[in-house]
Amino acid sequence: MELVTIEWKNNRLVLLDQTKLPNQISYVTMHTVQDVWIAINTMIVRGAPAIGVTAAYGAYVGIQNVEDNVDKLKEKLQEITQYLATSRPTAVNLFWALNRMKDKGLSIKTSDVLTFKNLLLEEAKAIHQEDIAINRSIGEYLLTLLNDGQGVLTHCNAGALATTKYGTATAPFYLAKEKGINLKVFADETRPRFQGAMLTAFELYHAGIDVTLITDNMAATIMSQGKVQAVIVGCDRVAANGDVANKIGTLGVAILAKHYNIPFYVATPTPTIDLDCPSGAEIPIEERHSSEVLKPTGQFVAPQDVKIYNPAFDVTPAHLVSAIITEKGIIEHPCEEKIRAIFHK
Amino acid sequence: MELVTIEWKNNRLVLLDQTKLPNQISYVTMHTVQDVWIAINTMIVRGAPAIGVTAAYGAYVGIQNVEDNVDKLKEKLQEITQYLATSRPTAVNLFWALNRMKDKGLSIKTSDVLTFKNLLLEEAKAIHQEDIAINRSIGEYLLTLLNDGQGVLTHCNAGALATTKYGTATAPFYLAKEKGINLKVFADETRPRFQGAMLTAFELYHAGIDVTLITDNMAATIMSQGKVQAVIVGCDRVAANGDVANKIGTLGVAILAKHYNIPFYVATPTPTIDLDCPSGAEIPIEERHSSEVLKPTGQFVAPQDVKIYNPAFDVTPAHLVSAIITEKGIIEHPCEEKIRAIFHK
Repeated sequence: MELVTIEWKNNRLVLLDQTKLPNQISYVTMHTVQDVWIAINTMIVRGAPAIGVTAAYGAYVGIQNVEDNVDKLKEKLQEITQYLATSRPTAVNLFWALNRMKDKGLSIKTSDVLTFKNLLLEEAKAIHQEDIAINRSIGEYLLTLLNDGQGVLTHCNAGALATTKYGTATAPFYLAKEKGINLKVFADETRPRFQGAMLTAFELYHAGIDVTLITDNMAATIMSQGKVQAVIVGCDRVAANGDVANKIGTLGVAILAKHYNIPFYVATPTPTIDLDCPSGAEIPIEERHSSEVLKPTGQFVAPQDVKIYNPAFDVTPAHLVSAIITEKGIIEHPCEEKIRAIFHK
Repeated sequence: MELVTIEWKNNRLVLLDQTKLPNQISYVTMHTVQDVWIAINTMIVRGAPAIGVTAAYGAYVGIQNVEDNVDKLKEKLQEITQYLATSRPTAVNLFWALNRMKDKGLSIKTSDVLTFKNLLLEEAKAIHQEDIAINRSIGEYLLTLLNDGQGVLTHCNAGALATTKYGTATAPFYLAKEKGINLKVFADETRPRFQGAMLTAFELYHAGIDVTLITDNMAATIMSQGKVQAVIVGCDRVAANGDVANKIGTLGVAILAKHYNIPFYVATPTPTIDLDCPSGAEIPIEERHSSEVLKPTGQFVAPQDVKIYNPAFDVTPAHLVSAIITEKGIIEHPCEEKIRAIFHK
């Protein structure tokens, strides 16, 4: 059973409650804009694309049952989008989706309330469908790089649970299943927060995809055994020179892949490529709380005040990346000039 | 406060209870040979060298309070060593130490009971001191390869807790502290069983050594940041060609070290070098239960029946090992001929 992160169903926004994963699969219905705010804030929904789509529907939910004229609804829409923007203050996709809904609403020329509301709902659905289309396109491009029967390693979760369908790095796995192509996926558990176990292994398992969970330090072993023909990861930011910031552990996997001559692919929508960031050296690396390392699932594994280093991300230099796969096409190494070119397509 | 794994104190064998670590530091006194059997069997004491020394003292504990003539004590000694050998059926050091105690006992020519008992206790103490001397020698050789102020990464636990003092891979850290040399140690947590956290970070922290705990997938990052000038690991077996079997994750660290031009050292007593094993290909890799991956500290991080791959060890090929450091000296790469030579020293 493939899990659906976000669904517009019976005129209601329904979200998979990701705070209950992997032990419980439950869905929550958003009746009010406050429900949506709480869902984003408490990480019932997480992952930049999924947050953006949720917020877009949220803007509509906020006016869905308001009985007033179009001018008042436009005022209300501005309030609602401002309010929803406070749910996760650093989420770029959130602001982008809310601005698009607001701009759409303010540009609608009708005075018919029902038409106004319907056009707003259509815009949210369009944002939703565009996310699906982007991921599907990334998946199609990635599939051209893979062959039936191959083993593919992925790290962290750039999966369907972070988007509305397919995910980015996981998109070829879902498409392969649709098309009857056999891939054998390996998921790194991704310490310290176990996103590879709790999210990637979880969602692929539920979709009936052949997935094997390993600890991060087993990646070299499965590569040495010839079990891996490609590595695919997502990313948080790509610099203009092709350096890639992604979840801690990505750099190590890239070095191992190079050692074993295995292609290392980065899946990303083009908005994640930051032309204003010249290289990985300019990307700040967030350090997180020591408890993530010290208490893997709530129990201490080392003395409480032992020194911990806990960087949340690392930077993989461009020369270790075989290709960056976007919805607009494949950017092969060396990528710096090709990155700029793809934005002009 | 440095932890003492095994101590002969007030005419009693006292063991650190390692089943209570890292949350409780407690010591248990062995009053009978049954106490010793249980301590080995339930892993109150663990690590091949530590088990060997414990068993040697155990053989003495078994006759310590027996009032009988020397001939009867020799019979009793044979029973006791047979009995203790059943406590951990696959531990080579255990059998070796018990045979040595038995052979010593049977060769003693006195009919004086007190002399007989004292000579046996001296033999156990000799085995104990030899372990300390081996580790100290490994540590002294390793220290010649390190400089004040350097960062050193270690993986898993080849530490004092697995031996009677110093450990093997950790020996230079303890010696550096004795000598006032500053080293900055990084300990990989070593999933799935967290020996790097629960044992290595734990024992170094308690010895007042500068140690920082990281997750396995952060090793590449600290190397890329210039924080690591050497990697030192222990090992389970060295093949005649210099291939090294050690805890899962060692291979990956060796590849990362090579990528960053950081020397990768393997610390091992010479008995761990197996001249009858031509290469790493002949070393069987034990696969362990999926629950170690699925339930890091008791709570599931993925669906209970998702596929898991859980090899306990990996094999690092000789060409990735800069040098093997034994109590008899440093065997630099390429090592195959030098390994055979060192046995003839």
